[in-house]
Amino acid sequence: MQLFVIKVGGNVIDNPALLQSFLQDLAAVQGPKVLIHGGGKIATRIGERLGIESKYVDGRRITDAATIDLVTMVYGGLVNKQVVAHLQALHCNAIGLTGADANIIPAVKRPVKEIDYGFVGDITSAALNIAPLKALLDVGLTPVFAPLTHDGQGQMLNTNADTIASSLATGLSAYYDVRLIYCFEKKGVLQNAEDDDSVIHLINREIYARLLEQKVLSDGILPKLENAFAAIESGVKEVLIGHAADVRSNTSGTVAGTLIC
Amino acid sequence: MQLFVIKVGGNVIDNPALLQSFLQDLAAVQGPKVLIHGGGKIATRIGERLGIESKYVDGRRITDAATIDLVTMVYGGLVNKQVVAHLQALHCNAIGLTGADANIIPAVKRPVKEIDYGFVGDITSAALNIAPLKALLDVGLTPVFAPLTHDGQGQMLNTNADTIASSLATGLSAYYDVRLIYCFEKKGVLQNAEDDDSVIHLINREIYARLLEQKVLSDGILPKLENAFAAIESGVKEVLIGHAADVRSNTSGTVAGTLIC
Repeated sequence: MQLFVIKVGGNVIDNPALLQSFLQDLAAVQGPKVLIHGGGKIATRIGERLGIESKYVDGRRITDAATIDLVTMVYGGLVNKQVVAHLQALHCNAIGLTGADANIIPAVKRPVKEIDYGFVGDITSAALNIAPLKALLDVGLTPVFAPLTHDGQGQMLNTNADTIASSLATGLSAYYDVRLIYCFEKKGVLQNAEDDDSVIHLINREIYARLLEQKVLSDGILPKLENAFAAIESGVKEVLIGHAADVRSNTSGTVAGTLIC
Repeated sequence: MQLFVIKVGGNVIDNPALLQSFLQDLAAVQGPKVLIHGGGKIATRIGERLGIESKYVDGRRITDAATIDLVTMVYGGLVNKQVVAHLQALHCNAIGLTGADANIIPAVKRPVKEIDYGFVGDITSAALNIAPLKALLDVGLTPVFAPLTHDGQGQMLNTNADTIASSLATGLSAYYDVRLIYCFEKKGVLQNAEDDDSVIHLINREIYARLLEQKVLSDGILPKLENAFAAIESGVKEVLIGHAADVRSNTSGTVAGTLIC
């Protein structure tokens, strides 16, 4: 059976009109599906009002104790439940989750090497508990994940939404033909970051190596592509990277973005 | 089959040591169980830091637009996921929910009469969706509810945790022998509000009428008792009101608090 694992980025979460039309398209997707949402800037805004400073080392966000509570509130509470309530209004029977719920995504607090990232969770694919997730899908629910995991010792952890998406897609590929779709605010992987229409429609390992050599890819897209190749090598049928507004075509057989294979 | 529906109040949520020992006792309860937690004062504290004023009319809290976002974050995110993560650490396979998730508790925004309570949800027992909740219990999960519902149109609503507990207990009584337990920071219903040891061990309708006549009951306990009688008249086997520290005895056949029948 086919199943879509769909990740929607923080920039879409931050744009109410785009989010609403994305959720409409998502609700219309037939068959089993799983949504993973990013966080968006709302945690930073609420954090500023609470006097919680965003800390970065070498451009990477550090999740200190105040920040993990902040993102647990904002991503796991506000954003997740608003997405669920909107999907329910669209007659999509959503259930909002973090990786702590039903222990679906246990993680390991990232070991401190040069940088102490704080309460950031790394996922070991082998540790995923797919059975309860499959039980939810089997009764017709649409799981909606916030980008949070836990360490099994009572501590919530901050985990990249792209990584959660590829991990769940990989785990679910034991039971389904999984299509993993990354939805963001670009039409796909761009040949030229300045030109929104320069979408590369197909990327395989060989093309990827050439693109890396030519240094045309933007830094932001590299982890997405690494996650995509890792997913495909672990059993996911197909990975698509495209615009949130194109999720309808990207779930109906046509490819409006970039297909990774 | 026996099932416990256990509600733990905000005062316990606000007391880390009491909460931790309560969760340990809860994790040790055998068989299917559902937890409903209150909010506690943390929403007020975070609200103050965010400049969200707590508004009351005639002593009753008003949930305006800023407040429903606040409690969705704090109760549905921070408190709910911290409880779930702690239960997971205690090997209790918890799954955190609001009434919007799986559409288990649709509600109606309270009609404006003398007072506009704002985004407060009233539950119609007939509208509850118990099937997805039973599916979670059937795979061995322990559902943990925050005191939130939704209106089915995309809006989250604030709903009293005691009412959620009695509604779920009633709905589940079609499938289980339900014991509903209200855990708070008193040993039970007190004959004398000043004397913590003046627990009334048994209350039926007749005794309740007499206590009301004598005006010995505190205002706070009246809605709990009304909820308790409503639950029993709708099929719940037994309602207990007791201290959070007594949940172990109250789930093992002895009665350490007040039994309502």
